[in-house]
Amino acid sequence: MSIQNKSLRIGLFGFGVVGESLYKVLLEKKNLNASISKICIKHPQKKRNAPSELFTTNPDALLDDPEINVIVELIDHAGDSFRIVSKALKNKKAVVSANKKMIAENLPALLSLQSEHNSPLLYEAACCASIPVIRNLEEYYDNELLQDISGIVNGSTNYILTKIAKDKIDFKTALKQAQQEGFAESDPTLDLEGHDAANKLSLLLLHAYGIIQHPATIPLCGIQKLKAADFTFAKEKGFEIKLVARALKLPNHTVTAFVLPQFINNDNRLYQVHAENNGLTIESSLADKQFFFGKGAGGFPTAAAVLSDLSALRYNYKYEYKKRTYPIVSPCTTDVFLNIYLSFEAGTIIPDSLFRNIQLRNLSNTHCYIIGTVQLSRLREHTLFKQQNVSVILMPEPEIISSEQEIPQQEAYQLV
Amino acid sequence: MSIQNKSLRIGLFGFGVVGESLYKVLLEKKNLNASISKICIKHPQKKRNAPSELFTTNPDALLDDPEINVIVELIDHAGDSFRIVSKALKNKKAVVSANKKMIAENLPALLSLQSEHNSPLLYEAACCASIPVIRNLEEYYDNELLQDISGIVNGSTNYILTKIAKDKIDFKTALKQAQQEGFAESDPTLDLEGHDAANKLSLLLLHAYGIIQHPATIPLCGIQKLKAADFTFAKEKGFEIKLVARALKLPNHTVTAFVLPQFINNDNRLYQVHAENNGLTIESSLADKQFFFGKGAGGFPTAAAVLSDLSALRYNYKYEYKKRTYPIVSPCTTDVFLNIYLSFEAGTIIPDSLFRNIQLRNLSNTHCYIIGTVQLSRLREHTLFKQQNVSVILMPEPEIISSEQEIPQQEAYQLV
Repeated sequence: MSIQNKSLRIGLFGFGVVGESLYKVLLEKKNLNASISKICIKHPQKKRNAPSELFTTNPDALLDDPEINVIVELIDHAGDSFRIVSKALKNKKAVVSANKKMIAENLPALLSLQSEHNSPLLYEAACCASIPVIRNLEEYYDNELLQDISGIVNGSTNYILTKIAKDKIDFKTALKQAQQEGFAESDPTLDLEGHDAANKLSLLLLHAYGIIQHPATIPLCGIQKLKAADFTFAKEKGFEIKLVARALKLPNHTVTAFVLPQFINNDNRLYQVHAENNGLTIESSLADKQFFFGKGAGGFPTAAAVLSDLSALRYNYKYEYKKRTYPIVSPCTTDVFLNIYLSFEAGTIIPDSLFRNIQLRNLSNTHCYIIGTVQLSRLREHTLFKQQNVSVILMPEPEIISSEQEIPQQEAYQLV
Repeated sequence: MSIQNKSLRIGLFGFGVVGESLYKVLLEKKNLNASISKICIKHPQKKRNAPSELFTTNPDALLDDPEINVIVELIDHAGDSFRIVSKALKNKKAVVSANKKMIAENLPALLSLQSEHNSPLLYEAACCASIPVIRNLEEYYDNELLQDISGIVNGSTNYILTKIAKDKIDFKTALKQAQQEGFAESDPTLDLEGHDAANKLSLLLLHAYGIIQHPATIPLCGIQKLKAADFTFAKEKGFEIKLVARALKLPNHTVTAFVLPQFINNDNRLYQVHAENNGLTIESSLADKQFFFGKGAGGFPTAAAVLSDLSALRYNYKYEYKKRTYPIVSPCTTDVFLNIYLSFEAGTIIPDSLFRNIQLRNLSNTHCYIIGTVQLSRLREHTLFKQQNVSVILMPEPEIISSEQEIPQQEAYQLV
């Protein structure tokens, strides 16, 4: 497929907030040389702000139309999305998608389809919406020197956490407000439990380190179990709680990755990422820490990323997945030690053996917690990790290093 | 010239901090498929941390060597740099340069040379060192929707301003410390007077808006005239003073650009950019505000950007300068109103006629200043602007809008 600086004739799937935003922008911006030929929707009875002749409910009317050279896929359903994107790639159409779940869960198939049919699939909008992170990882940080990615990649949970911390409201009220303002889905489970963040982390792992890691295999804990006492503790210590996706290269060149709530102190750039915004710190051994910040959700910010992918297609851009050929392509390791805060209800039995060492044990009537070091693999397998009344929060980093120094070296790496 | 994923055989000009950092990195990182064949230096008597057979003082030994397919130019002298880069491009070698002054002052010639000889010139390191701003503007923000770029792009001045604000030392002491720690040149004039920032702004203007604007035509005022009273005033108001390079699209689609010290309050992301770091806010009408932060100077951060350009060359990347074909390519306008703070010594005559309106006049014995609105074109032409004992600082933004609303609309745009 070659559309070098030629006009893009787009078949659009989905006409929700992002789809409609994209439609409006393309109408106004003629010099992009891109226009929407047809739009496939699920519910033809809904009123739409576009001429009715554009709409169809038949996917093949777009996928089999030889005039259409780009498919933009902006629907919710991951299964439908995969079928659409697969057929589009087979039909040698370029594809732009924002469906992080579909992409993260189908990376091996999507990479094969792209190379087999020589059709590009771009998905900048699938990770941190408007922040140009995928292409920067793929192109700018194209070397072995990337050390660490730490990011707030889910706008809904960050909005809720900000509301709780700033407006002193409880979790349920904050979730309700987020839903009312359009920053959380009516079924918010995927966001709250960290699955959405894991999907995005899966994309980051691929473009940062060349690792294909199914999101279901990434250790994760969301924010749904956080208790009022946890927020009080954070406030007392001057921390904010953020849901952080992390991908860190270890001294032995393997990579560990997880999604966990974390206490963040104010010398961490993520401290300043509030509400529905996203932020990422990228650390490399040459450039030191870099920080990227921007809107992580919303119609126009997401459309901005789609637009940028469309613009790249005009110049035949595609991901080369260069890092797949690099030395480090082993799966992520969980053989790493984390400093965690584990909070629980009075009476819950927490075996000391879970911890490699315990720094603090607080068993007051109002707030029971232990701060200590655990191996990620052990924590993840332990039933406590999944228990509803037990919350796990990663401790902030610099403070912990000193208290860990007495611990004898073991074979696993300490992330402290 | 085609070097698609082939080995890069580099001719390096300059073996200072950045050159040596690059040399070290390339020695270690074999999978980049790039190696330094020869190094041209000015002073052969200096001791170098590399095998002596690599070095020569003859530029043509590199420029005429058919085995060398990439020239990396990391020297100080803009005139020599231009001659080297021009000959390299004519000889169909790809070029990577970090020389902002040379590039900014020779954009028309460098664009012609690239297209005439089909040789790419990349210069990510020339603007904000490790922050990937040039390529993001060129590729990711490849549409008409970019509204505003506001950045701290000079590490030396930011280091000095941070020292003065945090350590409560005077300008001279701060400058001395910056020089001792390697964050300011022995002749710091280019940095202090804002010329270095103007050079970088010139590159931003080209890649953001397609405008070629010689840095000498950009209105600028550095930090060299700031007085102790100005820093006291900033502290009282809770502001930080930063040297800000700005490129803003006006409602009539022209662009205004300038380099000025500015009072920054703590809801501006630039407030958090301290010491030798750089930071940029990029605002587009779709994606809203985005923020990029990273090291703006230093051997390894700059080498990181050079490395990224080298990596891009392996895949035949070149700047397309796409925005040169866009509707807005008129030169920058100065027909814009700014809210400024103008501070002066008692007895200095400041004509009221300079201002379109005056909001505050303080003529105490210890600190004389006026806050008011001026047209950038008038300010720039006025002798006061160049006077040693008169400092000009842009006021922070949101606060000013309301106090300006009484002013009747005129033909020029108010930047308030």
